[in-house]
Amino acid sequence: MNYKEIFEQISEELRDFDEIGQVATYIPALAKANPNKFGMYLVTEEGHEYDHGDIHENFSIQSISKVLSLVYAFKLVGTDLWRRVGVEPSGSPFNSLVQLEYEQGIPRNPLINAGAIVVCDILVSQLDNPYQEFIEFVRKLSGNPSIDYCEETAQSEKECGFKNNAHINLMKSYGNIENDVDEVLDLYFHLCSIEMSCKDLAQTFMFLARSGKNPLNNERILTAQETKRINAIMLLCGFYDEAGEFAFKVGLPGKSGVGGGIVAIYPDQYSIAVWSPGLNSKGNSSKGIKALELFTTITQSNVFGPTPLFDELEYD
Amino acid sequence: MNYKEIFEQISEELRDFDEIGQVATYIPALAKANPNKFGMYLVTEEGHEYDHGDIHENFSIQSISKVLSLVYAFKLVGTDLWRRVGVEPSGSPFNSLVQLEYEQGIPRNPLINAGAIVVCDILVSQLDNPYQEFIEFVRKLSGNPSIDYCEETAQSEKECGFKNNAHINLMKSYGNIENDVDEVLDLYFHLCSIEMSCKDLAQTFMFLARSGKNPLNNERILTAQETKRINAIMLLCGFYDEAGEFAFKVGLPGKSGVGGGIVAIYPDQYSIAVWSPGLNSKGNSSKGIKALELFTTITQSNVFGPTPLFDELEYD
Amino acid sequence: MNYKEIFEQISEELRDFDEIGQVATYIPALAKANPNKFGMYLVTEEGHEYDHGDIHENFSIQSISKVLSLVYAFKLVGTDLWRRVGVEPSGSPFNSLVQLEYEQGIPRNPLINAGAIVVCDILVSQLDNPYQEFIEFVRKLSGNPSIDYCEETAQSEKECGFKNNAHINLMKSYGNIENDVDEVLDLYFHLCSIEMSCKDLAQTFMFLARSGKNPLNNERILTAQETKRINAIMLLCGFYDEAGEFAFKVGLPGKSGVGGGIVAIYPDQYSIAVWSPGLNSKGNSSKGIKALELFTTITQSNVFGPTPLFDELEYD
Amino acid sequence: MNYKEIFEQISEELRDFDEIGQVATYIPALAKANPNKFGMYLVTEEGHEYDHGDIHENFSIQSISKVLSLVYAFKLVGTDLWRRVGVEPSGSPFNSLVQLEYEQGIPRNPLINAGAIVVCDILVSQLDNPYQEFIEFVRKLSGNPSIDYCEETAQSEKECGFKNNAHINLMKSYGNIENDVDEVLDLYFHLCSIEMSCKDLAQTFMFLARSGKNPLNNERILTAQETKRINAIMLLCGFYDEAGEFAFKVGLPGKSGVGGGIVAIYPDQYSIAVWSPGLNSKGNSSKGIKALELFTTITQSNVFGPTPLFDELEYD
Repeated sequence: MNYKEIFEQISEELRDFDEIGQVATYIPALAKANPNKFGMYLVTEEGHEYDHGDIHENFSIQSISKVLSLVYAFKLVGTDLWRRVGVEPSGSPFNSLVQLEYEQGIPRNPLINAGAIVVCDILVSQLDNPYQEFIEFVRKLSGNPSIDYCEETAQSEKECGFKNNAHINLMKSYGNIENDVDEVLDLYFHLCSIEMSCKDLAQTFMFLARSGKNPLNNERILTAQETKRINAIMLLCGFYDEAGEFAFKVGLPGKSGVGGGIVAIYPDQYSIAVWSPGLNSKGNSSKGIKALELFTTITQSNVFGPTPLFDELEYD
Repeated sequence: MNYKEIFEQISEELRDFDEIGQVATYIPALAKANPNKFGMYLVTEEGHEYDHGDIHENFSIQSISKVLSLVYAFKLVGTDLWRRVGVEPSGSPFNSLVQLEYEQGIPRNPLINAGAIVVCDILVSQLDNPYQEFIEFVRKLSGNPSIDYCEETAQSEKECGFKNNAHINLMKSYGNIENDVDEVLDLYFHLCSIEMSCKDLAQTFMFLARSGKNPLNNERILTAQETKRINAIMLLCGFYDEAGEFAFKVGLPGKSGVGGGIVAIYPDQYSIAVWSPGLNSKGNSSKGIKALELFTTITQSNVFGPTPLFDELEYD
Repeated sequence: MNYKEIFEQISEELRDFDEIGQVATYIPALAKANPNKFGMYLVTEEGHEYDHGDIHENFSIQSISKVLSLVYAFKLVGTDLWRRVGVEPSGSPFNSLVQLEYEQGIPRNPLINAGAIVVCDILVSQLDNPYQEFIEFVRKLSGNPSIDYCEETAQSEKECGFKNNAHINLMKSYGNIENDVDEVLDLYFHLCSIEMSCKDLAQTFMFLARSGKNPLNNERILTAQETKRINAIMLLCGFYDEAGEFAFKVGLPGKSGVGGGIVAIYPDQYSIAVWSPGLNSKGNSSKGIKALELFTTITQSNVFGPTPLFDELEYD
Repeated sequence: MNYKEIFEQISEELRDFDEIGQVATYIPALAKANPNKFGMYLVTEEGHEYDHGDIHENFSIQSISKVLSLVYAFKLVGTDLWRRVGVEPSGSPFNSLVQLEYEQGIPRNPLINAGAIVVCDILVSQLDNPYQEFIEFVRKLSGNPSIDYCEETAQSEKECGFKNNAHINLMKSYGNIENDVDEVLDLYFHLCSIEMSCKDLAQTFMFLARSGKNPLNNERILTAQETKRINAIMLLCGFYDEAGEFAFKVGLPGKSGVGGGIVAIYPDQYSIAVWSPGLNSKGNSSKGIKALELFTTITQSNVFGPTPLFDELEYD
């Protein structure tokens, strides 16, 4: 079986998938998403691409952007980053504020909201024009110069962003925020608002499967060592309170967003993105996780099992 | 370079390693460990074995046994296990009791104390003679019929086991313990007391690198699917509050114990055990982690990076 | 109006009281209580007594005994007591265990379970025969030599006392329990099981209204200073998570138990006990609180308002 | 002994008091306070006044204003207030944010910061000009038309008010803040900045000793019933994590502020204010508490003991 056939099989198996969950409703931009949308896009090390469904339509990548801002800040400040944010999973979400208090304003990891806010604070400190420089970075990774923030989404996020406001103020009280809180949050809300297609998303994350090199121009984004760090963080912290479940079912480093997108990579082999706006009770795309589970089961590409013979999966 | 040369290089690099940490002191059996002991043992898929240092000396495997009891209970009750214990990392240890309260007596995962106690409760319910049957299970995996509990250690653990007593009573109050608390704790403390050598330990865990098959007789212990589940849990939950750090530095599923032992596996390739009794501030063997970090860096066998060419590492 | 007329008026007003709540059901001895029972008993400084309803029937005083064990331990060890238990209200009950962890095994006050367990530990350390000596103490205060523990209740408490077991083990892990946990808990469960009538209860607490002197024989139980300490603790900590509500509605130092009893005192004037087994959502007697609210409103005897003219309330 | 002699005795006893503590340093306006300042002022029901020391000097009343804003909001919205803020003590301060999360944005009581912020939100909703109307209210109670906010202090509070910002945003996320968070916080910080003398403070709180009537003009501020509610809240919640200690040592409803002021009342008898800027480890005036302890011990006016013969304490 090759990737093309595998996509067909998954599509077939998911035809009657009915645990599609609920789209996020806390902001209008997400609430209006069509829950029946579904796309899947695979980019391989060899540069082959495989797709299925709604792969050109843009959606809000939301928390997925936390990986990209983390990578950018990591490039800028290196391991100094870890003095301001941890690398450990965060446990259940109920105590995010108490954990911040207990750990003196140091977020557990850069993929929870508090951690991503610290990352934004670093970008604000380090960059002359963080908005412009960050989106250029994303455009270069994706190869798509039209990728952009969605102002409407950013504005909506801001209007209901009281909990993020509580987090940043608490961190500021501990001295872990350097800049004005409103300025940092504005960047944070913009990062959440970035829109991409499945195709863009798979392409954008491919450098994490390539030991840190952008596949489009072989530019080194991160060292091989740094790339492993990011991948480890994604596997341990990328799926809210469902990391263990995802690690078992899918078994790849990845990241999800409440817009229904998920991206995952297999080192040295591929990057895969799925999109389906319905979320399960943990806030991850319900159909998206199922599709990835089928994909890694069929291809046997789960980092907790034997390495598959990827060559045989490529379309000739 | 082959494994033999790699072990020599690691030994060389660690000659002056001086962040050796402190041996555990809460019970006499651990406190009397010699901090200068150091052993490393590797078993490969092909059945080759490589060793270095104090590899025949027995030490207390402590929490490492939590993986073995988990595997045994999983064999016995299958996925019913997950109704009584979660699979998610637990966050910082400060709130273990409040988390149990918040989650109504369901421990976050089977490798924290509370979770391992639930696993013991299952063994007590399911087995006629849990002590005998469990140690026989370990002996068969290791191929060493002389492996046993250490009564002195078990007794010491019991005498200072008030926090475990608090955990089991809290879980009992939520109905998640079926048997008498003293009976369950007695098994739990015995499991912590098992003693093995590095050689035994590497051998015992090799089935997790072989998709669930005991290398000694090809008996299936777990299905390939179940094995991935265990490996995922080890990677996410096997190193107390240092899982993220270990995932990055070493990048393998594994488990440590406060006796200074660590075991880790690379799917389809090898099982490796190290032993050095000095612990870092997180309770993991300080030199042991360094040795494994060097090993996976040299062999490039980190699941978050490219798959290495293992064939070239074998000694001919 | 005098006390006799006041009792008649309260009885009249409560005739149709229908928020009678639920009797406690976690042990059989409490579950079988008749929710329609109601008694009220008042003892004055002058030694007059006034009663209404079921005042001779015994009921389980439960947590009310925590005040008596506190007084006894305070007599024995004086202010050393405050090195092992605090005097501050405990906030909401959800985090009793985390609070014990945060405060290193020191309970917030002696009227929460953890605090009362520490008090029992002191009694076990200080007395040759704590069971006998304690019940003698209660008998002397009450003037009733037939007051006793209820073995059936004590046994039932023990059989479902896992949460108390969790608390004592956690405190033991911090070194705040000197004796064997089972021995201390056995005393604790026996204290909860003491049975009295309303008459006994009002009489027993009268010394707290008399600056520490037993009204029956003028024996000094506590100094005037120590008595204020106990009264302050009762007012701040005597009603679980309803202290503020009780302080406002009733405005007297007091203590309730899940058996439906409540006792309260007005310094220098009176001791009053009520009993009605139905509990409100906070675990306090629903009708009992209402009766006391009416009583202190009619008599204007609330420590947060003007001192009433008690002389006029006495019976002819 | 009469009040005049009592003040002299207290003054004598405190001559060598050396546990004077530290002045608050988080804002310049407080940090520059002279730790040797000390004043005491008593106003009686009969309208007599007794003073000692620095009683005309203004200081920042800080949290003491929380009682006044509570009274004002209670006048405006009545018992509806209790749907938005509780009346129970808050336990230890370490978990203020987690408690807010656990209780869905409802603060435990109106004298902790979060509760006082909700009270400010009510004032902003209910009043056309909350700044002006509130300060007029305070001026009328005190009889001093020159009492005012300190803009410098308010500004300093704002500049370091990140934790309050965290609290209000968290409450806003639960829907318990109606107005713009910056607008509410601005009022809150201004309330903290009010400056008074000991004389003003004792006078201002005298209505709480008079069942709710302003002594200056007999205007009813609160009903007798409402006044008891406020007094009960002060006793249970007025001294941060030292309520139990204060209730025992002083035994009166009262409130302290980090500016070193404390005010307390005895129902139907008197209002007393002390000021000494050095704070103990719980944030209450160290010498102030000692002075009040001496005062209520000498006058025997502790609500947990017998009612004293106040007539004999009045001056000639």
